[in-house]
Parts: sequence; structure tokens; C-alpha cells
Amino acid sequence: MNEEPRVEMYIKENCSYCDKAKELLDGKGVEYETYNVTRDEELFEEMVERADGRKTAPEVFIDDELIGGWDETCALEEEGELDEKLGLALADGGETVDSDPEHRKVIVSGSGISGLTAAIYSARSNNDPLVLQGDEPGGQLTLTTDVENYPGFPDGISGPELINNMQEQAERFGADVRTGIIEDVDESSRPFRVELTNGDVYTTDALIAASGASARTLSIPGEDELMGYGVSTCATCDGAFFRDEEMIVVGGGDAAFEEATFLTKFAEKVYLVHRREEFRAEDYWQDRLQEKVDDGEIEVMKNTEVTEIHGSPEGGVDHVTMVRNPDGKPSEKLDDPETEEFDFDIGAVFLAIGHTPNTGYLEDTGVELDEEGYIRTKGGKGGDQTKTDVPGIFGAGDVVDYHYQQAVTAAGMGCKAALDADDYLETAELGEASAAQEGAAASDD
Amino acid sequence: MNEEPRVEMYIKENCSYCDKAKELLDGKGVEYETYNVTRDEELFEEMVERADGRKTAPEVFIDDELIGGWDETCALEEEGELDEKLGLALADGGETVDSDPEHRKVIVSGSGISGLTAAIYSARSNNDPLVLQGDEPGGQLTLTTDVENYPGFPDGISGPELINNMQEQAERFGADVRTGIIEDVDESSRPFRVELTNGDVYTTDALIAASGASARTLSIPGEDELMGYGVSTCATCDGAFFRDEEMIVVGGGDAAFEEATFLTKFAEKVYLVHRREEFRAEDYWQDRLQEKVDDGEIEVMKNTEVTEIHGSPEGGVDHVTMVRNPDGKPSEKLDDPETEEFDFDIGAVFLAIGHTPNTGYLEDTGVELDEEGYIRTKGGKGGDQTKTDVPGIFGAGDVVDYHYQQAVTAAGMGCKAALDADDYLETAELGEASAAQEGAAASDD
Repeated sequence: MNEEPRVEMYIKENCSYCDKAKELLDGKGVEYETYNVTRDEELFEEMVERADGRKTAPEVFIDDELIGGWDETCALEEEGELDEKLGLALADGGETVDSDPEHRKVIVSGSGISGLTAAIYSARSNNDPLVLQGDEPGGQLTLTTDVENYPGFPDGISGPELINNMQEQAERFGADVRTGIIEDVDESSRPFRVELTNGDVYTTDALIAASGASARTLSIPGEDELMGYGVSTCATCDGAFFRDEEMIVVGGGDAAFEEATFLTKFAEKVYLVHRREEFRAEDYWQDRLQEKVDDGEIEVMKNTEVTEIHGSPEGGVDHVTMVRNPDGKPSEKLDDPETEEFDFDIGAVFLAIGHTPNTGYLEDTGVELDEEGYIRTKGGKGGDQTKTDVPGIFGAGDVVDYHYQQAVTAAGMGCKAALDADDYLETAELGEASAAQEGAAASDD
Repeated sequence: MNEEPRVEMYIKENCSYCDKAKELLDGKGVEYETYNVTRDEELFEEMVERADGRKTAPEVFIDDELIGGWDETCALEEEGELDEKLGLALADGGETVDSDPEHRKVIVSGSGISGLTAAIYSARSNNDPLVLQGDEPGGQLTLTTDVENYPGFPDGISGPELINNMQEQAERFGADVRTGIIEDVDESSRPFRVELTNGDVYTTDALIAASGASARTLSIPGEDELMGYGVSTCATCDGAFFRDEEMIVVGGGDAAFEEATFLTKFAEKVYLVHRREEFRAEDYWQDRLQEKVDDGEIEVMKNTEVTEIHGSPEGGVDHVTMVRNPDGKPSEKLDDPETEEFDFDIGAVFLAIGHTPNTGYLEDTGVELDEEGYIRTKGGKGGDQTKTDVPGIFGAGDVVDYHYQQAVTAAGMGCKAALDADDYLETAELGEASAAQEGAAASDD
């Protein structure tokens, strides 16, 4: 018998990735200590030192070995190595016997808004859904502090609370929510065979792909090396670590505007850097941002791109190189307003430049993806589309929707996918599986 | 000056049409007395007598004259005669001068889930939406006592509460919600000209049709004459009036199952009458209903149709004539199980046989409707469709969706319609109105 290893985690308040890491360990029944660095300068310094200079929460240690943040912990879990480090793997290190895989009527891939709504409806249709949480349990909404436009909550609701409510609702009707990330789907057999990154295998009659999208990065020099050391895709997670420094937010949509506005709470000054002239953000956010611009808390740099990030893990971000196109107005901070390529001192860089859909596990199936990886769904009944090229596989939320991307549109589509899957299953039960995908059952009485 | 007329209203607890009638009068600033008949047998008898035998709440009286229930009150309002009876019309009875009509950027037709969600998003886009409530303020959801599948409320929420929340949320962001029913839209001019049934006129740059659907009736003898006297399309409104009687619910979908289950609280016995063999109701409701069947509280009569309703306004419903097709199982209540057409004693008939879309006001426009009156929307971005044949007119919710018809799908579509309308308006502002409807602006950064 192994002795149980000592697990430690540095956390921050309102840090959703911290919650995710705790949830992952809780799910495994692992004991751990947490150190809250929120208002404890000394503890924060200790964390930065033990974490080799990383200034991002959480930081996880197992028997004094630095595992890292959520991304690193999750990567270990995907590779099946986390259990080993936690002393949960089989003592002899042997492979488990390949017993009959567990069978489900419906598997939902992803536990964000669309996945949980699909689970609520699938459960109410007695399809006994299994929800596999994916590598970001709760999805992108868990990173949003205040959701004001989800209909039904006049005073707004926090993203994590809304997600918790939905999970509770799905579980109340019988949905089964488990950690797990799908690695591969074999759609050539019926039922489908679904393999997880940790080696687990399921079979399922229907699959609802609601695995969402992940933050996009710039793919510029310095970005990877400094990710977690001053470069971040989550202002609500990491903003407070760079108090009283100047910060850049890159992007031009709602998320960029929301993050820039949020960061003024901590920053000496926020620079919103956008490569185009026009913004996609809704007017509400443009107005909120303008107030901060008028106050001098935010400066907007349009027609400008960040091309390199300079710094070191030890010292964090030092400065960035930016290029301004001829229409770009030079920043007030620059001495030489004429230059088009220039260096710019900055303490942190937050990326809010959109997302890429998490559909890698569908690449070798018959499900058609577009060049960016979004699922191409087919025309459906009643004005929406959740069916893919593979009968029995449905898509919902940000794996399909590259345009609206709202909580309530993801929820609507999750509902439709569950109802479409139920139609498919009921027709398949009647021995008419092929007809099901073509679109029947529109009878209205 | 007229003296103010005396307005009286008999009401019941949990009666959404009562709330609507009160809201209509409150909106006009009219004083009125209410009499709650819920647990007052004497008062109930008084109502029935004053209302010429009608057993449905509300019953409205103006200066002792019976106006009727919500439908009748609303019809008067539509014809512009209610204000006259309430002493609110112009003393000289003359027409008002046709001044310049009020102009809006966005008018939303309908105040159900989809209309209010469109209003939330339009308001946040600074499009200053005007919501015209239509003849059923709050839409169909106000008739639902308990919404269990709208994501975000693990313990469920009542329909009226959810609607109130959404209206509060829309108003908080600046939406303007007013009583009014659109009679006609002239889409040949820009801005569109919108005429209401009460004679008011608006102009608008964009119109979101979210006017929902209304309860369908059977079109059989006796139905119209007995509507409100034992025939009803709203079990939650009128069920309690027929305590300890036998009741029929006609239909085979979720609504029929929910109403039949609900009515067991009051009924001696409930008969669920469905013209087909198969039910459309989700498994959750089929299970709930089966429990009541096992208890002997509900009997299911499949393959059976109601063909005539017999009775009188004074005595209410006495019996119905039904026809059973050869596959139909005869009811245990019948002496002669062989007969295919038979009379059946019953105290009340509740209709839950679907809805027809409220799109009459669009019939003479270029908006394409299908043979049932549903708006035929066009292919859109990101997997949904809200655009009609007329650039600037959008459809959302039950005027488009003849299939899913869930609260959350209506909400999702209302959001999309508002975002599509905003795209249209922004492109139109740039002088490219024609391009807007074709579908641009899918840029992701």
C-alpha cells in the first residue's frame, strides 16, 4: 500500500479555475490543504517562490512537487497520470482488464450551459444521460462573474451559480455528471464506442456534442513561455495578481470589453488593444467602456496588434512589441507618435480574442467540421439545427454556433439537441433508425 | 365631465387571466373592486348569477353591466370601446388628430418568453425597444403553474414569476412595455408603419414578431356557446370551479398531460381523450399520468374524439358525444362497450390540443407564412433562423417554431432575433440596408 501523498493548493477568492481543481480532487475523494492568498501578501510571495515565479492561481503541489495550475493538473488527468501521482493508480501498475464497457442511451460531452440543458431535457425524457464534464467543468460561463442577460434573473446571476443551478436541476431529474474527457468516438458501430483520455470506455446510442470552445491565443513569440507568468486568458482569475500595474487586454468583442472594465479595479491603467477599427462588443459594453475611457482608466488602441511579448518566468511580463497600421492612433504614452512598430512597457497581458471549438475528438468521424473546427449541422425542424452527418450524433452550443454565442442561445440549442436525440432514439426503437435522422415526428396533436 | 364608473371584478387565486385583467385596468389607472371567490361558496354563487351562469374567472362588471371574462374585456379593448365604457374616451367622442406617429428603432410584438428576451437584448444594444403586449400579456407561460425545465431554476419556478422576472429585467435595461395589439403592418415604406387595434400608430425601423400562438379549439357544435360555461382552454384558471365533477381533457401532448394531472386535485375523475394511439407528451409526463391512472384518478381514452358538447349557459356542460375508432378501448364507464358513437356524462371539458400562431397582422405583408400561419424564416448564421422575407422583420418563438415550443428555445430565438435586428440596424445605418439581410458580420475578432 502506498501512503497517501500530501496535496496542497494555493487558491484565490472568486477563482473559478481554483474551484475546478478542487472539484476534480473532491471527485476523486482526495484530501488536500488549501492556502488562500487573496489578501495575504506573504503567502502570495511563498506561492510565487514555490511555483518558480508563476503568478496564477491555483498552484497545485503533490508531495512538494509543483504540478502547476489548472491546465497542467488537467493535462496530467487527461494522460491518466494524475491518479498515479495521487496514489490512486493500481499498485501493480498493470492495465485494468477490458471488461464490457458501460452502456448509456445518451452521452453528453461537456458540462456548460448547452450540455447541462441537454442533460435536463434528456433526463426528463427518461434517456438516463451521462454528462462527461470535459476539461473545463461548467464551461466558459464559470469564468463570468456577473451574467446580466440570461433571461429570468433581473438582478443578474454569477456564472458559477447559474451553472451550479443547472447541474443541480439536471441531477434532480436523474442525469449522471462525471469527470471525463472524450478522446475518440467510433461511430462506425451501433452503439457508438466512446473512449476517454483516462482510458475509460463507454458505449452509447446517441451522443450530444456540447463540448464548447476554448480560449484562443495569439501564437506570437513569448506567449507560451509567459502563459501563467503575466499572460492570461482569464481576467477574473488572475487580474488581482497584477495590482497597480499597467495591463493590456487584446480583443474587440464583449469578453474583451468586460475584462478591460473589470481590470480597472486593479490596474494602474488598462490598454484595450484591437487589431481593427470596428468593435463587435454590444452597445451596453461599449458604453461601459467609454465611461472608463472618459475617466482616464482605460485607453483604447485601435488598428494595433501585439506581435511579441517580452519578459521571463522570474520577472513576469516586461514589455510587448506592437505594430500599428496607418489608421491607428498612437497611444498618449508614446514619445514618438509616428512610429508604426514600437515597444510598450506593460505588467500583464490578457487575451480575449475568441475561442476555438473543442471538436478534436470528432475529427476522424463522419461528422462534418468546417475549417475552424465548428460542427456543420444540418437543417432541422422549427428553425434550428442540431443534427450532424452521423445519425445519432448531435451538436449544441459553441461547438456549432460561431455567431451568437450567448448563454441563452446555448441553452436553447442544448434543449433542441436533447429533443432531437429523443426523437432519434424513439424512432430507432421502432426499427426506423434511418428515417429518424431525415426529420419526421412534426405532428402537432 | 363623466362621473367615474364603478368597476367590479370577481377573481380567483392563481388565476392568470384575472391577473391580466387587473394589469390591463391598472395600466389605465382605473380603480376597481375585486371579490375573491376562491373559498367563498356564496360569493361564487353570486358571481355565477350576475354573470348569467358563467363559471369562469375573472368576471368584469362596469356600472353593473356584465362585460365578461378576459376574452370579452380584451375584445372591447381591441375595438377601442373599453375606454369609452370606463369614461376614459374623449368627451366629444371626436377622432384624435392624426399627429406624427411615434417612431421607434425596434418594436417587439408580443410579451411572452421570446418577446421579452428580444427586449432584454435589444435594450442592451441601445435599440430602445417598445414591447406591445398583445392580447395575452406574458404569453402562454403565464398559464403554467410550475415550469420545471427552464434551465437555471433547480426547484422550478411558476410561469407568471418567470415572465415577471424577464419583464423586470427588460425594463431595467430600458425596454418600454405597453398594452397594445398590432392590427396591421405596412412594410412597403421605411420606416415600417404599425397600426394597433385601438387606432394608435407607430413607425419602426425593425419589427420582431414574437406574438406567439393561441389555444386551438375543436370547432364542434356546442363549443363556442359553452366556452366559459364548462368548456375551457385553461385548467389552471378554471379547474377549481368544477370541484368534484368528472372532467374531460382533450389532447395528447405535454399540456394535456399536465392539465389532466393537475385537474385530479379537483375532479371526481379525469378522462384524457386523445384521437390517436400515440402520445406526444414527454416521458416525464407520461410517467406522472400513469401514476394517476394506477390510482384510478385518470382514465385514458385513446383513438377517441369529442364531436359535440351538450349543455346550456345556465346549467353548464351536461354531456358530450364521442366517437371511438375501431382501435379505441371503450371506457369502463360505458354500459355498452361495443358502440362507436356514444354519449358521455361530464361536468367540464378542457381543451389542450395545440395552438395556432398569431400572425394575422402579417398576412398582407411580404412575410411568407405557411398554410398554418407559421412564419417561414430563412437560413441564418450560427444555426438558427429569425429573418423573414422582409428585411427588417424578424420572427421568434411560437410564431416560427411549430416543433420544439419550449420556454428555453423561445428565449434563445428571441435573443437571436434581437441580435439579428441589431446587425440589420447597424448595417442599415452604414447605408447598406440591402446587404444586412444577406448575412454579413460573422467576423470573430
